[in-house]
Amino acid sequence: MVTFRVAAPKATEVTISGEFLKDSKALAKDANGIWSVTVGPIEPEIYNYAFMIDGVKTLDPGNPNVKTGSTPSTIASILEVRGDQPAFYDGHPVPHGEIRTAWYQSKSLGALRRFTVYTPPDYDHERGARYPVLYLFHGANADETAWTRLGRLNLILDNLLAAGKTKPFLVVMPFGYGIPPGAPRPSTGDPSSNDLFSRDLIGDVIPLVDARYRTTADRAHRAIIGLSMGGEQSLTIGLGHLDLFAWVGGFSAALPVSEFSRLFPAVAHDAQAANRKLSLLWIGCGKDDSLITAAQAFDDYLNQHQVRHIFRQSEGAHTWIVWRRYLNEVAPLLFR
Amino acid sequence: MVTFRVAAPKATEVTISGEFLKDSKALAKDANGIWSVTVGPIEPEIYNYAFMIDGVKTLDPGNPNVKTGSTPSTIASILEVRGDQPAFYDGHPVPHGEIRTAWYQSKSLGALRRFTVYTPPDYDHERGARYPVLYLFHGANADETAWTRLGRLNLILDNLLAAGKTKPFLVVMPFGYGIPPGAPRPSTGDPSSNDLFSRDLIGDVIPLVDARYRTTADRAHRAIIGLSMGGEQSLTIGLGHLDLFAWVGGFSAALPVSEFSRLFPAVAHDAQAANRKLSLLWIGCGKDDSLITAAQAFDDYLNQHQVRHIFRQSEGAHTWIVWRRYLNEVAPLLFR
Repeated sequence: MVTFRVAAPKATEVTISGEFLKDSKALAKDANGIWSVTVGPIEPEIYNYAFMIDGVKTLDPGNPNVKTGSTPSTIASILEVRGDQPAFYDGHPVPHGEIRTAWYQSKSLGALRRFTVYTPPDYDHERGARYPVLYLFHGANADETAWTRLGRLNLILDNLLAAGKTKPFLVVMPFGYGIPPGAPRPSTGDPSSNDLFSRDLIGDVIPLVDARYRTTADRAHRAIIGLSMGGEQSLTIGLGHLDLFAWVGGFSAALPVSEFSRLFPAVAHDAQAANRKLSLLWIGCGKDDSLITAAQAFDDYLNQHQVRHIFRQSEGAHTWIVWRRYLNEVAPLLFR
Repeated sequence: MVTFRVAAPKATEVTISGEFLKDSKALAKDANGIWSVTVGPIEPEIYNYAFMIDGVKTLDPGNPNVKTGSTPSTIASILEVRGDQPAFYDGHPVPHGEIRTAWYQSKSLGALRRFTVYTPPDYDHERGARYPVLYLFHGANADETAWTRLGRLNLILDNLLAAGKTKPFLVVMPFGYGIPPGAPRPSTGDPSSNDLFSRDLIGDVIPLVDARYRTTADRAHRAIIGLSMGGEQSLTIGLGHLDLFAWVGGFSAALPVSEFSRLFPAVAHDAQAANRKLSLLWIGCGKDDSLITAAQAFDDYLNQHQVRHIFRQSEGAHTWIVWRRYLNEVAPLLFR
């Protein structure tokens, strides 16, 4: 059970919304102007929430744990409910990898950009070893820190590695917007944000990663996965460049159902070639996610074209709860 | 000039406070319930601000750029005012270092902890080279990401390096609380948060850094600097361990004026030994900072004991504006 409290003596209405609630819930005011409500029981997990105070979205002023991203819509307070046992995304007493933030001048975009890199625990010790690379993309409104700060990617992989459940690999997490939020929209005929992202990934990020880190620079040792907006990116870029990637995935992918043939010409034209080249094609979506119909339609499309794939319909909505679990489930399948 | 707007139709009073304002300022409401105010001109810089809506501190709901830390009091919106020319803390088209986040099991604290490391641009290329290390501490309410996210440390050092104004060195930024905010206070006789921080630094962090990174592991190649709470830490640990550090600094240090003799026994008992061992002792504080009297008293104390040092009284208050400038000023003095 969790009790939320906020001091707002002049307010006439205070509500809370959060991933642990189906609908927003009203708080009640006491004589001192403190509003409160008790919610639960809440399953151990990591959740977003926010107050609405007289119609203005407000962070919990008593909670330092804040979710941020590349647009204001993503800002929320974070509630972490711990269980009896540490979770798969908690820090365990095991060897830990590092998170690096690397800056680079993107020739494709004419801009200074950043990406995040996870290096497994033995990366700095095994000086000669080379590693496969997972290119992993965030969703809309997020940024290149989302998979580590909200997705707990490093701790999940540290734990899987310590348990012998996954191979060691690097994870590269670029910033997912070719055109950053707030920048002018492209004119008709100009490349879209996703087109520019693809050019930056293939023209700048991958060559830089292969030059700067000890990677095995071939398709058999490259995976590409994304969530939501990043799922459309990973599926279109991955299935469009099977010369570069043998392992492809989409988590809760934001796929436009009417455009599969335009987005996936390689699959539409030569499924046999795709099956020969794909070591894994993994599609997952939560049953409470509004994108579940798009995921089901894409599963149908792949079945029609006889493209081998895994389709995972799980519990859950369009949240990091689902994406942390998918990472924990898919990482052991990669580079086998 | 900057116009701030926020929709709060039911509110009766909305104000803004920020580092670009001497006092908080009222916003005016229009017929649609949009409150606004225009402020300025504002000098190019990076500032914090927040709204008060009917007495509740509220982030700007239209601004994704959020300052976070280890306590809720630090949460604020960030306003970046750009000038005609890029600032010393902006990303320039120069080689860029990396930021690493490393996890470690602290034996001193019995806990999983993190520190941040800046590696200069050539660190991964010059495979044999070894580097000096600056241990750099954040202030109260902040965390181990503060010097990179708010202090722009990496960009400042990248720019100084490209201009040939500083030597390349690593910067290690640990989490500054031996006892994290929100944890139970120590009982009488138990070590303080600063004592535990010191044990963790000397017993865990420094040996780990010297084992994991290519450092030159001697006092001539180790500096220790901190700001505010971290300034008390850097000055007490640094001046108390001149066998470990030859370069010591305090930015806007939170020094208890009545306790200098207890905190700095080495200086009080043998200033000549301190002068022999210290390559640099640098103290700085802004004139509008309430800690300026403590800084002046410490300057007097060092003068009384004839300990060589630099005392810099600058413009500015207790803000990152001052600390970014101090870093830019002090980095060129280190490891010469």
